[in-house]
Amino acid sequence: MVAVITLTTDFGPGDAYVAAMKGVILGINPAAVLIDISQAVAPQDIRQAAFILGTAFPFFPPRTIHLAVVDPGVGTGRKAIILRTPHADFVAPDNGILTFALQDAGGAPSDNGHVNLAPGSGLEAVAIAEPRFQRSPVSATFHGRDIFAPAAAHLSLGVPLADIGEPVDSLVAFPVPVPRRTPEGGLIGSILHIDGFGNLITNIKAGDLPGNTAPVAVTVGGETITGLSRTYGDAEGLLALIGSSDRLEIALKNGNAAACLQARIGDVVQVRTQIK
Amino acid sequence: MVAVITLTTDFGPGDAYVAAMKGVILGINPAAVLIDISQAVAPQDIRQAAFILGTAFPFFPPRTIHLAVVDPGVGTGRKAIILRTPHADFVAPDNGILTFALQDAGGAPSDNGHVNLAPGSGLEAVAIAEPRFQRSPVSATFHGRDIFAPAAAHLSLGVPLADIGEPVDSLVAFPVPVPRRTPEGGLIGSILHIDGFGNLITNIKAGDLPGNTAPVAVTVGGETITGLSRTYGDAEGLLALIGSSDRLEIALKNGNAAACLQARIGDVVQVRTQIK
Amino acid sequence: MVAVITLTTDFGPGDAYVAAMKGVILGINPAAVLIDISQAVAPQDIRQAAFILGTAFPFFPPRTIHLAVVDPGVGTGRKAIILRTPHADFVAPDNGILTFALQDAGGAPSDNGHVNLAPGSGLEAVAIAEPRFQRSPVSATFHGRDIFAPAAAHLSLGVPLADIGEPVDSLVAFPVPVPRRTPEGGLIGSILHIDGFGNLITNIKAGDLPGNTAPVAVTVGGETITGLSRTYGDAEGLLALIGSSDRLEIALKNGNAAACLQARIGDVVQVRTQIK
Repeated sequence: MVAVITLTTDFGPGDAYVAAMKGVILGINPAAVLIDISQAVAPQDIRQAAFILGTAFPFFPPRTIHLAVVDPGVGTGRKAIILRTPHADFVAPDNGILTFALQDAGGAPSDNGHVNLAPGSGLEAVAIAEPRFQRSPVSATFHGRDIFAPAAAHLSLGVPLADIGEPVDSLVAFPVPVPRRTPEGGLIGSILHIDGFGNLITNIKAGDLPGNTAPVAVTVGGETITGLSRTYGDAEGLLALIGSSDRLEIALKNGNAAACLQARIGDVVQVRTQIK
Repeated sequence: MVAVITLTTDFGPGDAYVAAMKGVILGINPAAVLIDISQAVAPQDIRQAAFILGTAFPFFPPRTIHLAVVDPGVGTGRKAIILRTPHADFVAPDNGILTFALQDAGGAPSDNGHVNLAPGSGLEAVAIAEPRFQRSPVSATFHGRDIFAPAAAHLSLGVPLADIGEPVDSLVAFPVPVPRRTPEGGLIGSILHIDGFGNLITNIKAGDLPGNTAPVAVTVGGETITGLSRTYGDAEGLLALIGSSDRLEIALKNGNAAACLQARIGDVVQVRTQIK
Repeated sequence: MVAVITLTTDFGPGDAYVAAMKGVILGINPAAVLIDISQAVAPQDIRQAAFILGTAFPFFPPRTIHLAVVDPGVGTGRKAIILRTPHADFVAPDNGILTFALQDAGGAPSDNGHVNLAPGSGLEAVAIAEPRFQRSPVSATFHGRDIFAPAAAHLSLGVPLADIGEPVDSLVAFPVPVPRRTPEGGLIGSILHIDGFGNLITNIKAGDLPGNTAPVAVTVGGETITGLSRTYGDAEGLLALIGSSDRLEIALKNGNAAACLQARIGDVVQVRTQIK
């Protein structure tokens, strides 16, 4: 079986950090297939990394190992963890970067910002502990190279979770804003992510509207868009559509909606509906 | 045989889109070798993508599969196609992105902006149609993931073209500007591409000059460069040379010619010659 | 055995140059595993490339082949060389880009800016000469594609060094600034590299301080930082620590130290110490 390991980091394109991680992995498992998800996460932006990883991982083959290192707390008390879901393994700091991966696997955050990994949840996690599966010495500032990469590589060779670390029964997750219904049957949501085209990706999913309603207008940044388009080419100017992650998205035909609307993550997006 | 699949897109380095395509391919053919040509094409810039792909593909092994997705018309009427040439396969929207690939394979655009794939031309194409070789459901906004990537992956497993789609007898190509001869035996051409160094790459090829003449001066952006250099290190300041794609190129030693000359794609480049 | 070939260039993310090199390699050795170290070296910045390569290569498996092409002198008199060290092979122009690789392997630059490869040094190099292992014709402006990539690919197939080129007995290296001791037992060093986070990486290594002293204050850009932190999360604001390459580094917690201090490569960094 081919062992696929993906990498998501904020290390940027210009330095040796990602390459050092890849070198370490290939030194342990020369047959690993290494795929970049993104090395261009904004520095220290755990939420952006969580979203990007959450959008990519579902499309990888079962049992892919996803290495995610946006880690401003490197070397401090935060745990280094491995999460095993029915679909994949994740190797990352325990800082919320797996929020969407946990959500996708059915893990619901509790009030205290943690997801409980109850027996029977299908989720399992360990805190990486065994020095045998780490580089030595471990740099206090680069666990990506010295702890996470070796853990992913050993996992890809079939080392059992239990050999690498100690079980943990909850993981950090940040609250993902949830759209709320208006009395009129509409929705008030917000921008979750802005992609490289300037498309505004919201927290409103295709299934969030009541089944007997259809969206008639989307308002964001003072502009109202009438109706939903099916594609980026369907309308002129600003348009709203259900994007490839099944989320409501605002785009500008052949342009950058974020720049046009001076939109930012967290901005309110309102949807008005009518009975179908 | 190793199956090499390259990717050329405008998806940028920061999002999950390219990774999602790679995940889909590896799910179908885990042994595929995935190589980025560029993910940094300017958004919706089909011509830039066509040029970059056209410069890279000739150097890949025979039967490499080139996946090219700059696709502002995604989900609209434009076809999703596979082009088979004697050298390689191309999987892309039918929007002109294969213009240089077609040109290289001897396909000449007709007056109506199409290249005819006459029997005996050595060129063959299909419009992707068979749902069995697509993801389901197909997102209207991300055919890269749901149509093109699966098609490339299945091709790499040896699925015949005829199983994936219906034959088409012409493909879209945009007109590539052709340099014209002056009465004095010189050439008037234009800038086709500006690379990351700021080098100005023109539509004038080494073989475009009459055999009995040699260039003596190149004029662009109000500046005239005397003589041709052999290398970037041969002269001080601005220099003209035949670059690695066999095209006349204007460069600035240890600098950025495009910034220096405020040059843009389409700007006129004049070559004066003398009898050798 | 898996043949790993890394690539370090200033070709940027947007052009076909890196892909052309990879295509050439795969045409010669389809089983080569290709890993990007960085394609985002600043144009013509040999020193930056040397540092990035020097930081990455030690983490790759033994006998990895490192292809490094930042080559403003392409096509001029500078040699195209292969360096073999006990750990790895390097394929590059002879312009100083291997300075840190040579230093790491124990090669000390002489006064004239060269490292002598004395017999018994464990270092061996050839100037690439044999046309059989090059593309034909060789472009005067893209030896990366026509000379270096084929050489790396043939090396990865086990072709002996002696078949590819002629032995050379010294290689170009640039002087790496060395920190100097102050009469008080401190150090005066300088900034060697600024990474993508804006961290200032200095030429002062963990082992440079006398064993009986400990750093108490680090001064750079008019700011003085008291004490050393262990991690990026240990202190607020500016902090100094020993980074993952074992070098003294100045960082800004959740920020960009280079922007904050308007720091540049070469800026002085002073360390005061006290007896432990």
